[in-house]
Amino acid sequence: MSSLGMPLSTPALAGKLAGLQSSAIRDLLKLTARADIISLAGGLPDAALMPRERIAAAAQSALADASCLQYTESPGLPALREVLAARESARIGRAVGLNEVFVTHGSQQALSLLAEVLLDPGALVIVEDPAYVGALQVFRAAGARIVAVPLDRDGMRVDVLEELIANGERPAVVHTVANFHNPGGVTLSPERRRRLAELAERHGFWVIEDDPYGELWFDTPAPAAVASYSDQVIRLSSVSKTLAPSLRVGWMVAPDRVCRAVELLKQGADLCGSALTHQIAADLIADTSWFAAHVDTVRTAYGHRAKTLVEALRSTFGDALTCTDAAGGMFVWVDFTDGTDTTALLPTALDAGVAYVPGAAFAVADAYRNSARMCFTTGDEATLTEAVRRLAAAHASR
Amino acid sequence: MSSLGMPLSTPALAGKLAGLQSSAIRDLLKLTARADIISLAGGLPDAALMPRERIAAAAQSALADASCLQYTESPGLPALREVLAARESARIGRAVGLNEVFVTHGSQQALSLLAEVLLDPGALVIVEDPAYVGALQVFRAAGARIVAVPLDRDGMRVDVLEELIANGERPAVVHTVANFHNPGGVTLSPERRRRLAELAERHGFWVIEDDPYGELWFDTPAPAAVASYSDQVIRLSSVSKTLAPSLRVGWMVAPDRVCRAVELLKQGADLCGSALTHQIAADLIADTSWFAAHVDTVRTAYGHRAKTLVEALRSTFGDALTCTDAAGGMFVWVDFTDGTDTTALLPTALDAGVAYVPGAAFAVADAYRNSARMCFTTGDEATLTEAVRRLAAAHASR
Repeated sequence: MSSLGMPLSTPALAGKLAGLQSSAIRDLLKLTARADIISLAGGLPDAALMPRERIAAAAQSALADASCLQYTESPGLPALREVLAARESARIGRAVGLNEVFVTHGSQQALSLLAEVLLDPGALVIVEDPAYVGALQVFRAAGARIVAVPLDRDGMRVDVLEELIANGERPAVVHTVANFHNPGGVTLSPERRRRLAELAERHGFWVIEDDPYGELWFDTPAPAAVASYSDQVIRLSSVSKTLAPSLRVGWMVAPDRVCRAVELLKQGADLCGSALTHQIAADLIADTSWFAAHVDTVRTAYGHRAKTLVEALRSTFGDALTCTDAAGGMFVWVDFTDGTDTTALLPTALDAGVAYVPGAAFAVADAYRNSARMCFTTGDEATLTEAVRRLAAAHASR
Repeated sequence: MSSLGMPLSTPALAGKLAGLQSSAIRDLLKLTARADIISLAGGLPDAALMPRERIAAAAQSALADASCLQYTESPGLPALREVLAARESARIGRAVGLNEVFVTHGSQQALSLLAEVLLDPGALVIVEDPAYVGALQVFRAAGARIVAVPLDRDGMRVDVLEELIANGERPAVVHTVANFHNPGGVTLSPERRRRLAELAERHGFWVIEDDPYGELWFDTPAPAAVASYSDQVIRLSSVSKTLAPSLRVGWMVAPDRVCRAVELLKQGADLCGSALTHQIAADLIADTSWFAAHVDTVRTAYGHRAKTLVEALRSTFGDALTCTDAAGGMFVWVDFTDGTDTTALLPTALDAGVAYVPGAAFAVADAYRNSARMCFTTGDEATLTEAVRRLAAAHASR
C-alpha cells in the first residue's frame, strides 16, 4: 500500500481541520506580496521600528554566557519571569508572583494551551464579533461551542453577554481583545471592564484578556487592565508588537493552578522556550527607561500613520463610510455605509493596487459584508494616502 | 464565587493530565541540582561544547537585516528549510522537496503536532520499551492506546511487532528512536529497519523515526535512515544535540499532505517559529565544513566520556551489571544482574553524592526495576569515574 493511498487519519483530524482552514488573511497575504500592491491587509508590525541594534547588543551580552544556549524551564527563563512579574504587578495593581507568570511561544501559544486547560469539547466560549481569527481557530479546534457578542464603539457589548447569561447560557470562557481590538479597532470602556469582571465572579467563568496592543496607545493610555478587577481574568500579552515577533515571547498572568496545568501541557507541546530570546527580552524590558522611550517611538510613528489613514478615508469617502478613530494598536475598522460589498470590491482593489481584509474574514454571527480591516503600521504617510486614493478609484469603478 | 473555588475544568483535562504527570526525570532534576551531587540523571547536552562564539557571529550577521525580527512562515524560514532539505536529501538518499520539510519548536513539537494529525483517540501507537518519556506524554495526551515492544541490543524487536500484527493489532503509528536510543542506548539494525519499513507499507501505518542523536556516533556512523526505506517513515531531527537547544529548531521530513495538515495546526498552536534562531541555524548548518568539524568535536568529547563511564562501570561492578556499549548519543543503559532495585537504591546513591534515573521512569510494559539510565555528556572523565566510585559505595552499603 503506497503512502499516497494512506488515509491521513481520521475523524478527529477532520473535525479539527474544519475549524482550521488556513486563514483567509494568510491566503490573502500571499496574493498581496506583489510589489505593485500597497497592502493594508497585513497584520505585521513595522520591522523598521524594531530595535535591531539594541537586540543585537542584548544577544551579544546573553551569548557571553553559555547558559543561554541550554534548555530552560518550561514556564520560561526565571530572569524574564521576574521582569514580567514586576511589570504586570504595576499593570494589574497587585503583587504578581513568579508562579503566576508563564512565558509562552507568543501569546498565541498561551491561547492554545489555555483552551486545552479550560475547555471540554462542547464548552461555551464567548468571542467578540468581529473576532480575532487566531482565537477563533483555537477555540474551534478545541471543539468549543462559540457564541459571538458584538462590539460597539465601547468594545464588547457586555449587556448582550449579560442577556445571554440571563437566558441560561453558561460560558466557560469569555475572550476579549479589550485594547485597540483586532480587527475592530475599539477599546472596552472602564465601566464594561468592571461589569465583565463582576459577571465572571458571579457566574464562575474565566475571562481571557488578550492584550498584545495595550502599550500602543496614541493620545491616552489604555484603561486599567480587565485583570485589575478580578483574579478570574487571565491576562495575555507579548513583545511581538513592542519589540519583535521573532523573539517569540508572549506570556500569561494566571492563578498558580492554571499555570501548573499549562506547564504540564507545555512540556508535551515543545518542552520549553528559548533561553536566548528570553534573555534578550528580559534585558530589554528590564531597561525600563530605554524600553519606555522605545515604545514611545513606536507609538508616535503608528499614531501619525493611523491619523493619516483615518483622515484620508474620511476626507476621500465622506458619508460613504465610517471608520474607527484608531486610538491605538494597528488597525482601523471601516464600515461602508453606501452598500459596498468589500469582498466583491477586493479584486477591483487589487487591480487598482491596494489590498485590505474584507470584514467577512472576521465574521462570526454578523456577516460584515460592508466592512474591512485596514492596517496602518507598515506604510509611511505618503503610501497610506496613495492607498486610499487607489481604494477610491476602485470604489468609483465598481 | 472566588476563583480559588472555580473548577479548573473538566473531565477532558483530567484525562489529558493523567498522562502528563510532570515527568519523573524533571522532578528528579530538581532534587539533583545540589552542587555536591554528580548527576548522571540529566539529559542535557554539554553547554561548554556548544558553539557559542559561532552562534554569536551568526546572530550578528542575521541582525544586520531587520527581516529576521519579523514573523516568518509557519513551516519555517525558507532559508533554513532549503538547508535542511539538502541535508536530509543526502541522509535519506532521495531529493527531499522544500514542501516536505517542516521546522518545529524542537522535535518535541513535531511529535506533538503529528500526534494530533495522525491519531484519533483510541488509535494504537507502538512505542519502544523502555520508552522516550516525551513521546509517551504526547501519545497518552492524544488518547492513544499504547502497546510497547521491547528493545534488545539491535533496537526494537521488530519480530514482536510482527507478531502483534499477526494477532490482529493494527497500529496507526510506530514510534522509534532508531539511533542511540534514549534511554536504551541501542541502535536499530539495518535488517530490522528494512523489515519495519516493509511492515509499514504492507499494513498501512506510519513510522515516526525520532532521530535527535544520529549525528552523535562515536566509532561508526549510524545505519541508513529508516526513512530511506519508505515514504511512510516520517523523520524527525533537531539541532538541540549538535548546536544548541535554545535555538529551538527541530524539523520533520514528511509527505506534503502531512506537512500541510501540521501547518494548519501550527498556526493555531503558536503561529510560527523565530526567524532569528532559524537564520542562525541555517547559517551554521550551511557552513558544511565548519559544521562537520564542530559535530566531530562534540562526537569525540562524548565518545571519550562514554568509554570512561562504560569502562568504569564494568571494571567496578564486574558481573553485578551489564550495560550498553554507548556507540553514540548521550546515554548508557545499565541492568543490574544482582537484583539491585534501582528505585530503592536512589536515596542511598543521592546520599553518596551521585544521581541517575531509575529504569522505572521509562517503563511501559516491563518494570525495569533493576535498570538505570546514565547520561555521560556533562561530566569530564575524572567526574564520571568519581560518579561510579560513589555509585559503588552506595551499592555496597545498600
